[in-house]
Amino acid sequence: MSQPNGADILCESLLANDIDVCFANPGTSEMHFVAALDRNPRMRCVLGLSEGVVTGAADGYARMADKPAATLLHLGPGLANGLANLHNARRARTPMVNVVGDHATYHLVHDAPLTSDIGSLARPMCDWVGKVRNAATLSADAAEAIRHAVSPPGISTLILPADCAWSPAPPQAVKRVEAIAPQRVTDEAVAKAARVLRSGARVGLLLGGRSLRQKPLAIAGSIAAVADVALLTETSNARIERGAGRVAVDRIPYPIDLAIEMLKEFDALILVGAKDPVGFFAYPGKPGRLAREDCRIVTLATPDQDLPDALSRLAEAVGGGTAQRAGIAAPHRDEGTIPDGTLSSEVIAMLVAQMMPEGSVICDEALTSARSFFSHSQHSAPHDYLAITGGAIGIGIPLATGAAVGAPGRKVIGLQADGSGMYTVQALWTQAREKLDVVTIVFANQAYRILEGELRNVGVEQAGPNARRMLELKDPAVDWVSLAKGLGVESVRVDSISAFRHAFDASLRRPGPFLIEAIV
Amino acid sequence: MSQPNGADILCESLLANDIDVCFANPGTSEMHFVAALDRNPRMRCVLGLSEGVVTGAADGYARMADKPAATLLHLGPGLANGLANLHNARRARTPMVNVVGDHATYHLVHDAPLTSDIGSLARPMCDWVGKVRNAATLSADAAEAIRHAVSPPGISTLILPADCAWSPAPPQAVKRVEAIAPQRVTDEAVAKAARVLRSGARVGLLLGGRSLRQKPLAIAGSIAAVADVALLTETSNARIERGAGRVAVDRIPYPIDLAIEMLKEFDALILVGAKDPVGFFAYPGKPGRLAREDCRIVTLATPDQDLPDALSRLAEAVGGGTAQRAGIAAPHRDEGTIPDGTLSSEVIAMLVAQMMPEGSVICDEALTSARSFFSHSQHSAPHDYLAITGGAIGIGIPLATGAAVGAPGRKVIGLQADGSGMYTVQALWTQAREKLDVVTIVFANQAYRILEGELRNVGVEQAGPNARRMLELKDPAVDWVSLAKGLGVESVRVDSISAFRHAFDASLRRPGPFLIEAIV
Repeated sequence: MSQPNGADILCESLLANDIDVCFANPGTSEMHFVAALDRNPRMRCVLGLSEGVVTGAADGYARMADKPAATLLHLGPGLANGLANLHNARRARTPMVNVVGDHATYHLVHDAPLTSDIGSLARPMCDWVGKVRNAATLSADAAEAIRHAVSPPGISTLILPADCAWSPAPPQAVKRVEAIAPQRVTDEAVAKAARVLRSGARVGLLLGGRSLRQKPLAIAGSIAAVADVALLTETSNARIERGAGRVAVDRIPYPIDLAIEMLKEFDALILVGAKDPVGFFAYPGKPGRLAREDCRIVTLATPDQDLPDALSRLAEAVGGGTAQRAGIAAPHRDEGTIPDGTLSSEVIAMLVAQMMPEGSVICDEALTSARSFFSHSQHSAPHDYLAITGGAIGIGIPLATGAAVGAPGRKVIGLQADGSGMYTVQALWTQAREKLDVVTIVFANQAYRILEGELRNVGVEQAGPNARRMLELKDPAVDWVSLAKGLGVESVRVDSISAFRHAFDASLRRPGPFLIEAIV
Repeated sequence: MSQPNGADILCESLLANDIDVCFANPGTSEMHFVAALDRNPRMRCVLGLSEGVVTGAADGYARMADKPAATLLHLGPGLANGLANLHNARRARTPMVNVVGDHATYHLVHDAPLTSDIGSLARPMCDWVGKVRNAATLSADAAEAIRHAVSPPGISTLILPADCAWSPAPPQAVKRVEAIAPQRVTDEAVAKAARVLRSGARVGLLLGGRSLRQKPLAIAGSIAAVADVALLTETSNARIERGAGRVAVDRIPYPIDLAIEMLKEFDALILVGAKDPVGFFAYPGKPGRLAREDCRIVTLATPDQDLPDALSRLAEAVGGGTAQRAGIAAPHRDEGTIPDGTLSSEVIAMLVAQMMPEGSVICDEALTSARSFFSHSQHSAPHDYLAITGGAIGIGIPLATGAAVGAPGRKVIGLQADGSGMYTVQALWTQAREKLDVVTIVFANQAYRILEGELRNVGVEQAGPNARRMLELKDPAVDWVSLAKGLGVESVRVDSISAFRHAFDASLRRPGPFLIEAIV
């Protein structure tokens, strides 16, 4: 091989750090990086037909693989298309290395049509933004980007000017980066939380981030076994390991009134990688914070600290042994066969909870429709549950796509609202091309149902034509079966319980992607 | 009606300024504005199933209606999804008023999941960004936003905090805004350009923006009748009025080598609302500027100045009368029937040029496939030609959608590449719902063909698996007929010349949207 160029060094830096999947939609200014990826078949390149697919898939991948993917995005507009799902990924504290091509450094002065301020676009949705200086520093620049990706929070964006990519790169060592280990919490923080637990107050242990994996949850269960404490979690989480045999957590509901009602009983909340709960939105006359005004908020660990360690030390401080655990979900009781009849969101949630196989990965962007799934599935076969973390709709199908790449051999099940699904329906094509084991269940209610409720909340009892035209997805109804066919994914439309059961069962037994349009 | 709130004042401000179309995809934080729109049926609300549809349609609308539409976008992520087409619109100098909802001012401190820095996201793609201060200033804030939209350049973005929308608005006059009139060029600029025209040098008159409408083009033709000058335009333009009986302009080609070759002959370029030509991208060893290094660049008028006036005064200075004009395109000669055979992009371009009716509006995002259409259609029935101005792909179908709303009674014809079409295919649904007269011709070559050429340009003769996986759209091929059906648009797939001719002819005779998947 001739002398490597900057693009080669970047590609080798990613591979040296075990970043070997690149979700991509390149353009002309990234063509030298494409050529470098082409010379490195160890890198798995996965095309998304729009950048919302690319970044959403990278998020799903990392949540399951527990390591970052790279993305390849074309200039400011390509990045912009991916920003909404970067926003979700940032809220999920997902590790990710975004490579955003830019014009050659000397070309920027010409203000060519595709020129824009990439940094200004990137910063709101990224934890770190850097720009390659020249081909000679590429190894160092890449290492810096990767270091920020693997050390939470993890959205790292490296702007790659075309000339830095195509210029011959002087010899430079490609670096294996060490992640900055999460900080252990102080003894004082542990002691303070322990005192709250012993105080006799009604306490909630609010768990976030990595504390929602099986092992730290088991430790939380051992705390609950010796202290009167409720195990809670935020409304949206990147990944929860749950189901039968695992310690269960209660989720704060999305609707603000229900959330306030749930938290009303607590005199104190101990935060473990979670935030003091706030409303998704402000509503006239309702509070922004959800806990009681006099509720004591005690931080055991911030999201970036070592959450499993903090829980272990708290368990030790309160005398929670590993032998006893509270809150372990029993296996699903046989609830008997649900009789046939008209399909509803509620029934679908129950059936999926009953039928999904062990090891399933649930990607939930059904918002209103699948709200009851979380409680129905508490006793289901052990599974992972991935939610929309930043509220930016359009993540569901891409997230499932990436999760399937990151968790081969496991069944990914997408619970998908139709309104949000339409944002990034293009991701179905990537599922088809990569032959991914994803079953997408579209709750086809033909409306932004969540907004119809919000419109009533602002006092509109009878929506007029303009409101209906903005909140309904009828006239025409989206035909998801044809859409899926157009993108290479087999599918079926069902409107009865027996038909859904049959279709879902069949989809679980076959490899590759499948879509069920459920009329609800 | 009870006391109006801030949202009502904003809605009334838009209507008072004749902004009566709102392309929208709202969320919870915009629900009070939705309610206000619902109380004002004079406003036509058009839903887009993703924000790329919303902003692209607003661009197409304004290019044809010559006045801004409003858009309604949900917080930072909703804006982000629309940024790529705002980028195109900004490059087109399109007037537009974007209303971006934000959390209530007092809620931002809580950093709720959907919180982001909207201003940082907006500024790179907007000419003006402002934020409503409170309901009492809404009329003034709205007037400021509208003033910036109607005074070029025109991308105006007003951030609307939810509490400013829902709070009762004290009495305030809703203002009719006066656009800032474009400045007339100086006499010196006219004299200088006239001297260049008389100098005997080989001169190109490079026309941009509003100078590409029928009347100013006629004036340019009268200049060409008395001076040895070529009438040129940039590679991409917002709107050109062209065809038989109108003065024709030559377009600078997209491929850099062809562009340099075309401009080589010119000793001087006179800029009329155009920029000194530069390459879309930088390439190793090739110049950034396209004109000869010794080519004299003379600015008659900058894009914001009064271009028709500048051309009139230049015509007067060089003695160009209104009676004689050079460069008027003759009506299409009958080129005889193209014999049946295998379909190709070239043949489609010829057939569309022959068959399209007078008054057609062409929206061209076919990039490689429709490159010859511009020359073929020079003698076609009079038509408008709208191009992708900022290079951010994914504008074609939304642009056609908006153009049809902005030019009722005219046939809109989309020349659509498949790769870029997949970015915002959701716009077909809006065409179906609004029953818009749009024929979309998809050039289904199953590749990012433009990038395959660029990859060869960087020296990759034989693309390997990774490059092919990023540049090819095969495996599976997108089935556009099913996609269109899924979105409520009738369609047909054709692979022969006779089938294309038949389908296109039929589509021109029927109202409403239609899609032709042309296998090329």
